[in-house]
Amino acid sequence: MAFRSTSLLRANRAIVYTQTGEPSQILSALTYKPLPAPPPETVNIKYLLSPINPADVNVVQGVYPAKPSLTPLVEGHPGVFVGGNEGLAEVTQVGSGVSGLAAGDWVVMTKSQAGTWSSSRNVGALDVLKLPRVDGLTEVHGATMTVNPPTAYNMLHEYVKLEKGEWVVQNGANSAVGQAVIQIAASRGLKTLNLVRSRPDIADLTKKLKALGGTEVLTYEDLADRSLTEKIMKDWTAGKGIRLGLNCVSGKDTTSMARLLGHDAYLVSYGAMSKQPLSLPTSLFIFKNLTTTGFWQSRWYKTHTRDNKEKLMKTLVDLVAQGKLKEPEHEILTIPAEDSDEAAGQRVRDIMTKIAAGQYGKKVLLKIESTQ
Amino acid sequence: MAFRSTSLLRANRAIVYTQTGEPSQILSALTYKPLPAPPPETVNIKYLLSPINPADVNVVQGVYPAKPSLTPLVEGHPGVFVGGNEGLAEVTQVGSGVSGLAAGDWVVMTKSQAGTWSSSRNVGALDVLKLPRVDGLTEVHGATMTVNPPTAYNMLHEYVKLEKGEWVVQNGANSAVGQAVIQIAASRGLKTLNLVRSRPDIADLTKKLKALGGTEVLTYEDLADRSLTEKIMKDWTAGKGIRLGLNCVSGKDTTSMARLLGHDAYLVSYGAMSKQPLSLPTSLFIFKNLTTTGFWQSRWYKTHTRDNKEKLMKTLVDLVAQGKLKEPEHEILTIPAEDSDEAAGQRVRDIMTKIAAGQYGKKVLLKIESTQ
Repeated sequence: MAFRSTSLLRANRAIVYTQTGEPSQILSALTYKPLPAPPPETVNIKYLLSPINPADVNVVQGVYPAKPSLTPLVEGHPGVFVGGNEGLAEVTQVGSGVSGLAAGDWVVMTKSQAGTWSSSRNVGALDVLKLPRVDGLTEVHGATMTVNPPTAYNMLHEYVKLEKGEWVVQNGANSAVGQAVIQIAASRGLKTLNLVRSRPDIADLTKKLKALGGTEVLTYEDLADRSLTEKIMKDWTAGKGIRLGLNCVSGKDTTSMARLLGHDAYLVSYGAMSKQPLSLPTSLFIFKNLTTTGFWQSRWYKTHTRDNKEKLMKTLVDLVAQGKLKEPEHEILTIPAEDSDEAAGQRVRDIMTKIAAGQYGKKVLLKIESTQ
Repeated sequence: MAFRSTSLLRANRAIVYTQTGEPSQILSALTYKPLPAPPPETVNIKYLLSPINPADVNVVQGVYPAKPSLTPLVEGHPGVFVGGNEGLAEVTQVGSGVSGLAAGDWVVMTKSQAGTWSSSRNVGALDVLKLPRVDGLTEVHGATMTVNPPTAYNMLHEYVKLEKGEWVVQNGANSAVGQAVIQIAASRGLKTLNLVRSRPDIADLTKKLKALGGTEVLTYEDLADRSLTEKIMKDWTAGKGIRLGLNCVSGKDTTSMARLLGHDAYLVSYGAMSKQPLSLPTSLFIFKNLTTTGFWQSRWYKTHTRDNKEKLMKTLVDLVAQGKLKEPEHEILTIPAEDSDEAAGQRVRDIMTKIAAGQYGKKVLLKIESTQ
């Protein structure tokens, strides 16, 4: 009996928590039973690969505006929070009344906080979106397709109508979104001025970002050089300044960046890695008609139609097919099916310790194996 | 001969400067000849009353983005800068080819930095706008109609579609624009939360702003009381927060004000009296979709049609006629025609000294008498 019960329990596994806190301390693995056949209007899916994004860490910490819901994975259990917002899954079984999805299809999540750090799950058919399968589209592409590339794409398209040859300036240019911005901008013939922190291997980083299609790479310190900023304003942009700035840093380095913006520019924030406020001279707003706003892909999903979402995914997948949008640098952490929950939980807590210590420049993706 | 020349020179007078600097030190009065008949497409006008606005002081100081042009008021003279951006004038003579303007009409300026601190001037017919004469419209109304009330009106209309009963929050609520915001908002059935600095006569100020139609008056210090801000968010705005904030202060008090804003709100800046930057948590942009931008009435005039401008003036004059837009508190400084230029210049420099010392809460308007 013990064996049978264990075997059933190990059919699926999720990375869960019951109250918010540091991921390296509070996450654990929970085994749950095989899924029953899907109810009408739902599908059973099996996650192939699910990233650990910085926002996921904030959700577990309880400091992110999007909150997960309690999920009753195990009968008689009061429910747990399942980690993970993004992921690639394969449809395994389709409920009645579901159209446009079949077993074997790849799907991504459009509902936020889906709990993607799990193996098989039952989800509403409208909470997922079929991802077109094209040559060159890997599991890693699929698993990282709904947060960073759409953030980059939408920030480049929703605020300023940029003409070919125009500049975009961004900070944190080495972030996953930053790298997507470089590639998507390059695919549109836009030039990017990419700002990064000064570091010993700046030459390598510059080379890497230029290989992705970045036009120029500068450090925040470089911007202290007035002759350089004058050159950017006068020569590079023909006196007009840059009309779109993308910010994931804030603080004083972003104040410097804003001085490169021209009249009627937008400064769009999607992060604040400095943990400092965004602080700008009021004169930029009044006399240069600067607009600052923020972008959150979760809000975009909430405020756009399914048709909009499908088009966006198709656009991004097409870029992948054309070789214009590469996999992010990554590392895959496999949680083997034969691990005990104790061992599996330890693996995840260990990786979270390393992520918290800033030891991963690469994105970590979870591959949670199961027997279902 | 000396008498005759002097008499001719005293026909008109302007308050001028030849290089930027402190108004209390560098402004002088310059007498100039009677105007010839107006060339085609122009009109001769006689200024009735011209305010000294804070921005006028900045223009003279050379720290304002709008720059005046050198004006050759006196024959053989290399030209001077004439102070003044706003003013009410009466048409005295109409050039050929001008339609829609006749002697006796009241006009206001739509071209910025017109040099309104003068008596009679010749101007392009398209650089002025006829002001409809209605009962209750005084010279003071007319002289202060093109900067502050339109700034208030446009900020209330161009960014957020507010429903009757909705709140607007503004700081510097006792400013000329602030008082116009209160009145125009009240005329539309909008509620205003008016923030001012703490001061000994706060009860009087509160009474005054409420008499203008202000709903609530609070000091920046009041916002430190969490129970009050919760009440504003939960009770006053039914949990939605305020969707439009107007800022002429910046600095930390504006950071506090921004916390009263709800989702999808606009924070529109038109000044920065604290001389501090506008500093906001990046999370407001990302997760609450805050947009911050700036409003400058001079840009509005440049980017809008003559028809738009006429409609705006008509709207504001109608509010005056309905008793819904009062004269700003003011004091008139008359520069008598019989003053020497030395004495006239001294009068202006003296008032500028008082304005710089912050001794005027009231707006000062110049009435430059002349014999033309």
